[in-house]
Amino acid sequence: MKTRLTLAMLVVLPLLQVVQGQEQQLAHIGDLRLDSGEMISDCVIGYRTFGKLNKYKSNAILFPTAFGWRSAALTSRIGQGKLIDADKYFVILVDSLANGVSSSPSNSKSQPGVEFPEFSIRDMVSSEQQLLLGTLHLRHLRAVMGFSMGGMQAFQWAVSYPGFMDKAVSIVASPQLTAYDLLLWHSSLLALESDPDWKKGHYTSQPGLHLLNMLQTLTLYTPRYLVSHNPRADYQKFESEQAQGPDDLDANDTLRQIQALLSTDVGASFGGSLQAAAATVRSQMLVIVSKQDHVVNPQPAADFARMLHAQLLELDSDCGHRAHTCEMKRIGEAVADFLEK
Amino acid sequence: MKTRLTLAMLVVLPLLQVVQGQEQQLAHIGDLRLDSGEMISDCVIGYRTFGKLNKYKSNAILFPTAFGWRSAALTSRIGQGKLIDADKYFVILVDSLANGVSSSPSNSKSQPGVEFPEFSIRDMVSSEQQLLLGTLHLRHLRAVMGFSMGGMQAFQWAVSYPGFMDKAVSIVASPQLTAYDLLLWHSSLLALESDPDWKKGHYTSQPGLHLLNMLQTLTLYTPRYLVSHNPRADYQKFESEQAQGPDDLDANDTLRQIQALLSTDVGASFGGSLQAAAATVRSQMLVIVSKQDHVVNPQPAADFARMLHAQLLELDSDCGHRAHTCEMKRIGEAVADFLEK
Repeated sequence: MKTRLTLAMLVVLPLLQVVQGQEQQLAHIGDLRLDSGEMISDCVIGYRTFGKLNKYKSNAILFPTAFGWRSAALTSRIGQGKLIDADKYFVILVDSLANGVSSSPSNSKSQPGVEFPEFSIRDMVSSEQQLLLGTLHLRHLRAVMGFSMGGMQAFQWAVSYPGFMDKAVSIVASPQLTAYDLLLWHSSLLALESDPDWKKGHYTSQPGLHLLNMLQTLTLYTPRYLVSHNPRADYQKFESEQAQGPDDLDANDTLRQIQALLSTDVGASFGGSLQAAAATVRSQMLVIVSKQDHVVNPQPAADFARMLHAQLLELDSDCGHRAHTCEMKRIGEAVADFLEK
Repeated sequence: MKTRLTLAMLVVLPLLQVVQGQEQQLAHIGDLRLDSGEMISDCVIGYRTFGKLNKYKSNAILFPTAFGWRSAALTSRIGQGKLIDADKYFVILVDSLANGVSSSPSNSKSQPGVEFPEFSIRDMVSSEQQLLLGTLHLRHLRAVMGFSMGGMQAFQWAVSYPGFMDKAVSIVASPQLTAYDLLLWHSSLLALESDPDWKKGHYTSQPGLHLLNMLQTLTLYTPRYLVSHNPRADYQKFESEQAQGPDDLDANDTLRQIQALLSTDVGASFGGSLQAAAATVRSQMLVIVSKQDHVVNPQPAADFARMLHAQLLELDSDCGHRAHTCEMKRIGEAVADFLEK
């Protein structure tokens, strides 16, 4: 029995250690001063870690969540054949502001609901830097990576903190919204605010949320993909699934994240110039776009990559914006190659 | 002077004749029994004619309006280098039901506003047949042609009245909506009905209409086209123009036309089978689709064309659904060739 127990412990203990690291953790980073001059008081940032920090602290990768995502869901993107493998890296998944885990209209006691201030992609990045410096005691990253709103943050990290990381990876994201993106997100705002009860926050079955979810489904994939995966005969079931969306969505959280998306512009401090913003970047970048992306227009990311002479991977999947999932294996291989170089 | 007057009359009189023909005319076709069993009472159908009917009455072409269009706007599609030239043909532009000219929620005295019954694409086609038989005394057409909702009617004409026309031309339209189309139009309905005042009908600056117009702009062109034609710096102007839309739009008219679009299915009488519907078609067809069309998915039209062994022209314009305008010259040439054969 004694021998058996020891063997079991040898197997189980390291597993427990990994599992603990992957659990939701909350860092209290104090008041967060925003670009607007306002403040998120007693700001909390959620995160999870995977893998081990090496003794030189040179293998840390920051991976912030996309619009509407939580770090819990992002764990499915970690592993072999996924976006990033935690064998070599210490991966820090961060809950982006207003995702219902980090400080958000839905969970703030001092600034609840509509009292929670608007913030920008730059504020998200600033909150993450404070998490790294204050809680994780990291002054340098191997890389920042992310898809969609997470990739917007990777662009902003590269511009805001040029020396902080060796590399940055942006997947189906943009450094600066185009007229198309602005039209989409302003439409999403109108859809959300069309709901007479949206200010109350938590809702699960109201028309404004239905419309917002349907608008997202319309653009997440290409029409060709939607048609080939959803028979006309099953439309009612399809619509009710799409309209429903995640049932823990809070309207005010969603609103603040949409407003953050609308702020996307690495050129904001440079008179709107992508070229000037690109000139500040010191990290190597891998930019991955999906040519048929109808959520994030791929043009500015491709332009920015060319300005940086960065590695640009243009996917042409009819999966559209969801290439971050449909093409995960291919993206993961490109990311692994890029990080090793 | 006498000679001059005679010369002037020779020039002016035929012109007057043409101009008179092009003017808005209204036909009273009596009560229109609908597929649903309901009725549009004292139904009025608006139309305009171009060119001359030949003595064999063999050159008449019916051209119904698209969603939200009136025959007045469609006149810009007639002429050399346009969709159809009236030199050889007697072109009858028809105002589709609920477009604010033909019987509509906005103009019906006996069935105003929400009292105006829902109707289908088949009902539009039936109203047009009554116009031809009762008012224009035409029992046969050279062709039915149309783009978008007009093209949906061309498909339905070919299936509902197989012997009535020699040819049918459908441009950026569909014989049967896909899950994508259904999602788009159900979203449009939700957008319209999100406006608390939509039942009152006429509105010019309300959020539901803004959202509906923005949704249309998002899908009318490809993202690439929108981005290349609208600089980010001009976004505010662009959005206010797109959100505004036509200022004479009536919410109930728009609602009924959206519901008609949602009924699009030439297979409705054939258990939903496109193949069975295709077997009834006797007219030759020209089917023109736009591969990057994000308003009307091109797949069912292409499938239907193949079932009919019909001529299929697949455009690949980044103008998307608006290919009916951007590619007007090319489409016009294909239509002219097809009609002459």
